[in-house]
Amino acid sequence: MNPLYYEDMIRQALNEDIGFQDLTTETIIPEDHFSAARISAKAEGIIAGLDIAKKVFTMLDEKVDFRASVQDGERVTSGQAVAVIEGRTRALLSGERVALNLLQRLSGIATETNKAVECIKDFDCHIVDTRKTMPGLRGLDKNAVKTGGGYNHRFGLFDAILIKDNHIAAAGGITEAVGLVRAKVGHMVKVEVETETIEQVEEALQNPVDIIMLDNMSTALMRQAVQLIDKRVLVEASGGITLDSLVEIASTGVDLISLGWLTHSVKALDLSLNIVSGEKSNV
Amino acid sequence: MNPLYYEDMIRQALNEDIGFQDLTTETIIPEDHFSAARISAKAEGIIAGLDIAKKVFTMLDEKVDFRASVQDGERVTSGQAVAVIEGRTRALLSGERVALNLLQRLSGIATETNKAVECIKDFDCHIVDTRKTMPGLRGLDKNAVKTGGGYNHRFGLFDAILIKDNHIAAAGGITEAVGLVRAKVGHMVKVEVETETIEQVEEALQNPVDIIMLDNMSTALMRQAVQLIDKRVLVEASGGITLDSLVEIASTGVDLISLGWLTHSVKALDLSLNIVSGEKSNV
Amino acid sequence: MNPLYYEDMIRQALNEDIGFQDLTTETIIPEDHFSAARISAKAEGIIAGLDIAKKVFTMLDEKVDFRASVQDGERVTSGQAVAVIEGRTRALLSGERVALNLLQRLSGIATETNKAVECIKDFDCHIVDTRKTMPGLRGLDKNAVKTGGGYNHRFGLFDAILIKDNHIAAAGGITEAVGLVRAKVGHMVKVEVETETIEQVEEALQNPVDIIMLDNMSTALMRQAVQLIDKRVLVEASGGITLDSLVEIASTGVDLISLGWLTHSVKALDLSLNIVSGEKSNV
Amino acid sequence: MNPLYYEDMIRQALNEDIGFQDLTTETIIPEDHFSAARISAKAEGIIAGLDIAKKVFTMLDEKVDFRASVQDGERVTSGQAVAVIEGRTRALLSGERVALNLLQRLSGIATETNKAVECIKDFDCHIVDTRKTMPGLRGLDKNAVKTGGGYNHRFGLFDAILIKDNHIAAAGGITEAVGLVRAKVGHMVKVEVETETIEQVEEALQNPVDIIMLDNMSTALMRQAVQLIDKRVLVEASGGITLDSLVEIASTGVDLISLGWLTHSVKALDLSLNIVSGEKSNV
Amino acid sequence: MNPLYYEDMIRQALNEDIGFQDLTTETIIPEDHFSAARISAKAEGIIAGLDIAKKVFTMLDEKVDFRASVQDGERVTSGQAVAVIEGRTRALLSGERVALNLLQRLSGIATETNKAVECIKDFDCHIVDTRKTMPGLRGLDKNAVKTGGGYNHRFGLFDAILIKDNHIAAAGGITEAVGLVRAKVGHMVKVEVETETIEQVEEALQNPVDIIMLDNMSTALMRQAVQLIDKRVLVEASGGITLDSLVEIASTGVDLISLGWLTHSVKALDLSLNIVSGEKSNV
Amino acid sequence: MNPLYYEDMIRQALNEDIGFQDLTTETIIPEDHFSAARISAKAEGIIAGLDIAKKVFTMLDEKVDFRASVQDGERVTSGQAVAVIEGRTRALLSGERVALNLLQRLSGIATETNKAVECIKDFDCHIVDTRKTMPGLRGLDKNAVKTGGGYNHRFGLFDAILIKDNHIAAAGGITEAVGLVRAKVGHMVKVEVETETIEQVEEALQNPVDIIMLDNMSTALMRQAVQLIDKRVLVEASGGITLDSLVEIASTGVDLISLGWLTHSVKALDLSLNIVSGEKSNV
Repeated sequence: MNPLYYEDMIRQALNEDIGFQDLTTETIIPEDHFSAARISAKAEGIIAGLDIAKKVFTMLDEKVDFRASVQDGERVTSGQAVAVIEGRTRALLSGERVALNLLQRLSGIATETNKAVECIKDFDCHIVDTRKTMPGLRGLDKNAVKTGGGYNHRFGLFDAILIKDNHIAAAGGITEAVGLVRAKVGHMVKVEVETETIEQVEEALQNPVDIIMLDNMSTALMRQAVQLIDKRVLVEASGGITLDSLVEIASTGVDLISLGWLTHSVKALDLSLNIVSGEKSNV
Repeated sequence: MNPLYYEDMIRQALNEDIGFQDLTTETIIPEDHFSAARISAKAEGIIAGLDIAKKVFTMLDEKVDFRASVQDGERVTSGQAVAVIEGRTRALLSGERVALNLLQRLSGIATETNKAVECIKDFDCHIVDTRKTMPGLRGLDKNAVKTGGGYNHRFGLFDAILIKDNHIAAAGGITEAVGLVRAKVGHMVKVEVETETIEQVEEALQNPVDIIMLDNMSTALMRQAVQLIDKRVLVEASGGITLDSLVEIASTGVDLISLGWLTHSVKALDLSLNIVSGEKSNV
Repeated sequence: MNPLYYEDMIRQALNEDIGFQDLTTETIIPEDHFSAARISAKAEGIIAGLDIAKKVFTMLDEKVDFRASVQDGERVTSGQAVAVIEGRTRALLSGERVALNLLQRLSGIATETNKAVECIKDFDCHIVDTRKTMPGLRGLDKNAVKTGGGYNHRFGLFDAILIKDNHIAAAGGITEAVGLVRAKVGHMVKVEVETETIEQVEEALQNPVDIIMLDNMSTALMRQAVQLIDKRVLVEASGGITLDSLVEIASTGVDLISLGWLTHSVKALDLSLNIVSGEKSNV
Repeated sequence: MNPLYYEDMIRQALNEDIGFQDLTTETIIPEDHFSAARISAKAEGIIAGLDIAKKVFTMLDEKVDFRASVQDGERVTSGQAVAVIEGRTRALLSGERVALNLLQRLSGIATETNKAVECIKDFDCHIVDTRKTMPGLRGLDKNAVKTGGGYNHRFGLFDAILIKDNHIAAAGGITEAVGLVRAKVGHMVKVEVETETIEQVEEALQNPVDIIMLDNMSTALMRQAVQLIDKRVLVEASGGITLDSLVEIASTGVDLISLGWLTHSVKALDLSLNIVSGEKSNV
Repeated sequence: MNPLYYEDMIRQALNEDIGFQDLTTETIIPEDHFSAARISAKAEGIIAGLDIAKKVFTMLDEKVDFRASVQDGERVTSGQAVAVIEGRTRALLSGERVALNLLQRLSGIATETNKAVECIKDFDCHIVDTRKTMPGLRGLDKNAVKTGGGYNHRFGLFDAILIKDNHIAAAGGITEAVGLVRAKVGHMVKVEVETETIEQVEEALQNPVDIIMLDNMSTALMRQAVQLIDKRVLVEASGGITLDSLVEIASTGVDLISLGWLTHSVKALDLSLNIVSGEKSNV
Repeated sequence: MNPLYYEDMIRQALNEDIGFQDLTTETIIPEDHFSAARISAKAEGIIAGLDIAKKVFTMLDEKVDFRASVQDGERVTSGQAVAVIEGRTRALLSGERVALNLLQRLSGIATETNKAVECIKDFDCHIVDTRKTMPGLRGLDKNAVKTGGGYNHRFGLFDAILIKDNHIAAAGGITEAVGLVRAKVGHMVKVEVETETIEQVEEALQNPVDIIMLDNMSTALMRQAVQLIDKRVLVEASGGITLDSLVEIASTGVDLISLGWLTHSVKALDLSLNIVSGEKSNV
């Protein structure tokens, strides 16, 4: 992660939550009150985003000491300590919500991704993410997918070509669309084309594409497409895939399965932050 | 909504997704290609965020015409049209993902909120949100909760007082904490105090607080607390409440039930955008 | 204060004043020239904003040592030292104007507020501020009012309800306006209504409002209103109140007196910064 | 004024005041409610900043029609109309405070400046401003000084040289300081030197400076300095000058008198905004 | 180009040049003075960046009418009109420098790129750019390379893999480096590896890479490498290549030649803006 | 340089290049891998911008140790070490391109400026820059000109008056234009007027201007103008001046020669960054 990139995001998040001031904390907690707090898991899952959570607190007070008890990607069980944080109580309490909001989302993504990855671990097939992320969180969300064992699809509209149905329709066909792309786009850019029928798969195979996406196909059709493609290019299954259908889809021989719900419908991992000791004094 | 506030957020979201350029669309779609597109529901739910979705497209091209087919807060069924969008195809395709990401999240929040609201519609009890929102989306998320029939809790640490366990511990008790608050905080600020036991409820009642939160209490304890408070101040139930336990909790007589999952674990409402017609040239 | 919030403001202030460079200082003062400077009062008043002044210098050079000789809220007399600052002479001279501009304004606000507070110290009545502050300085201005012994009214249009004449007119009456508010606004938001006549006060009392503002009323009318309200809700006097009329207004029994001139017509407290020793060398 | 420059400032000001939303206005005023409002003077003074006030409203809603009844620099009397504004009531009410805060400050500066200018209108002497302005408002404040008939001193540390006592001390004398400046600084930069004694004035005259500032000198000393300088360079009087001492100082023959209080201790011009008609619906 | 992306850049550029105000223009040119201006070529070259130049003027005044006489990519000769601009004279003069600075740089890049492209037009070989661009101009610079007939290499460190000597050294070899990349990086990312010797080319060929870069090799060595690679992957020549050596390098059979000087040592195309008519008044 | 000003620029530059992450480096180089790198000259020239290059690395990792081997303004020969940098390999590799892009441009400017300065070192004549700089780099570019021995012309449209042909035409003549300027502009602003004929020079001399620019005049005409002006004001030669014509122009007696190509057509100084040692470990 580019440290400057995520600092800007955290700064915005803290300003959104704290505004001018944390009315409650600044009124009740003396400036020289120090505490130790612990972040604990209240459910089982994979932790992701510890660096981000740490940065939330150190941006409020650079002297806060954040010591992770586990590493990103580690599985925790309910009750297990995730991190210990020591420093001014004001920084701990004012940063708590933003830190947990991010850590819980990212750990939720990693946990769900890992569930999918485990499902198909016997296949030579990767779970990949999509662009269905929340504004400002694209990079963090995609990092969490990797933490959970998944792989990243393209980051945005700028770093790879994905020719979809509307592009094909406007160009007049897959061949025309790929032709335009190959004539203008640089050599460092991968080209993927979305297909919905076997005929489209056949047309795609006649063109210089790197990946063929099978969009919303039945598993029978997928199987047929995979055989037709025969390892010449990578094959990605996409569209309406659930945890329950993962194994069946992986068994068709596709190389990649992309799952929008990893990031658009995140179930936050339940975590809590508790003050474990506090006192007015100082080091 | 302050229009300037959400313009900044959408600008960031579009820059995050498009970066320098939409490689695929700008390569394949001519600048003077125009289309009509339709956003449709692929599941039943409550729509929220239409203004935001519209703004996404008009920020890319002010001439895009976005006509909502329903209004925020309306229930749609699978297959129903949500909006029709006409304009340059480039703006439609480059804005699609950001618009859907936001509209699906906000509609998901409204849908889930409405489910909770409907559960307890026979009680004089409000569903309220929390600060468990994603960075940058606080205002939109909270608006979606209102669209779904819920009410907003405080927006951040700056607009209301919520005295939590750690504040109470640091101050030396509820009485001390409320005393500090009342001595320093202005008259336009509501004061809520979190309680975990009947003794704390009793202590809170001796102090000038506006709302008493019952945190993670059993329903039996809640019922006892509600009787003790006897309408003198508002009562909020909070912590670990699920859709299944809502009715029982509402039946205790609490005035408010706050639900973190409305915004921290959003299930996006399934929506799609399809180009329904397109052609090169236009006035 | 949220440290991130005021850092952004100070950064802007320094960029506005220094631009690319401090032409004079960077031309004449060697980079390794160090000085000690003293900020002194040239008039009597209450100091406010020392943290902000310190931050101005440390943002230019983190090694600057700023030691306040007094605390925010302390009264100083002409000639008294306010702070001693040691560090690179360039940082001291380039930051001087921004630091003084802020410190003088904030101390001016605290001083004037304190004058008002002292006037009515025998009454159970608070001096409160308004939204008549300068862009970017809302939080600092309101903090300075507290430093001077006053209290904060709402921070902006986002954190509390104040139903004014135009809202009442558009809604068709106080009852209608309060009705709309109570139906839609969350439980953490205080509701104040502006009244100009006894009839309006009576109508306001029939509604669930938290504060009644008496706007531009004669003291006779205020007295009548206070009796009518009879401690059921808080009463705020507002509009055209001067230092001379404060005691008479406080004597009507109002709970709060809001004064726009505390922040819209600030008389800066006279302070100066002098280099007391300097030399080329270093520690 | 650079339009982009002040748009950024107004955007920040509106975001500071409105935040996510104007709770009161958005709750009570329907979206399609339109009004006409009038800004009127409640005291006599010079109007400045009409363009800025207009921009505040049009940034919230580009369809707001703002028609100034007077021009910047015109004198108004109490009760006189300053502008008529028509548009959505929400934009009028949500923008009111920011527009007035700016218009009142800038008109206050113009009014006070004009008072000073009038005082010395029989002398060939200009009133000039200083850098004692509020963060973010430097350009607007200085524009208001011009509107009031004054002239601008340098805008910041970047656009002109002002060699002050501390620079002289560090350099080892006026001659040394001017020498450094002349050796390094470009030909488009004016050089002013601050003097406190006749000896310093004499030294300054031996050097290639464009302006000599007489800092905190008695009028007797000023008179002596002016004779000594004998029109060879411009002469600026500065430091502790009040409205009462202006004429005496101007009579010494100085070319310029700089006044910090024009901008550091502004008395806002009393203005009010009233809705004069409103109705639901409109084209 | 993402319109929001380049608006931000132009806004910064205009604020940098104009600051608070264009002192000369705002003092001399009345607000209601209108002019027509012409941008003309003063040398032969390829025009690039017309949209950007237009945006500079319309951001200052949306009513400015900018009509390009040629299109991006067209060759102009000295004296030829490039664009005609009509509108407020203030906007024309205040925007002139920023518009020309950008248009001249981008046209310079397109012109130089085209020269290189023409040199090797008989070979099946592309000219590509590098990351040697100026801060904030990456997207525009790379667009200008395309306008001149070149192709884009990766846009930044985020959109493609380029394994360079230092990465190889740290990983312990090309095989190890590619292994790490293939294990972790998603399927939408191209992988290029830098080689300096035939042995490295051989090692690279054993690994799943998409492009092999021949860095600073002699043409003899390049020829040998191209034969060895034998069309299995793309081959890029890089390092110290001049216009004079282009043909010889292209003749080795490489697919791509990257040239840093296209963007790091730009010779601006000579263009001028002249007012061709002006008058006070207009509708 | 204002440190805050250039930090913002570098932050943008790094975000532009790195985006979310440096895919290659973060995949291959372990977080705890440390290296020493050396920046060396690959051509002869004057170094400028070392502070900026240092800041690039320390913004990515504050623990990077950057030790310059030479000082800004020093001449280096091919092969000579410019700086040694030690720290995390990730920070070194991710910052390399931005640091070199800036350092090479600024050194290129200083080198070219110095060439011009040396050309005319026997004349009492200064080389000055123009506003023909790249967006965001104005301050750095102008600093590099000074490093090379040149002087700065005005920084932007805000800090000095330059009355050009279009201003003169709109005003109706030099006399009218200068009259408007003198009536409105403050005493800290220098006034330069552009002339194209001897008649204009004569008219300019009748007016209170500080500098007369001779725009695109023949050297014969320049000589005549210089004699006419006779040291009463500074004289600047401008327009189409090349390295070859510098001596002839300087010999006409002008005080200043402005050269746009110093900054609009920069030839980057060839520099390289090499890792000289690296290991996984840490202090």
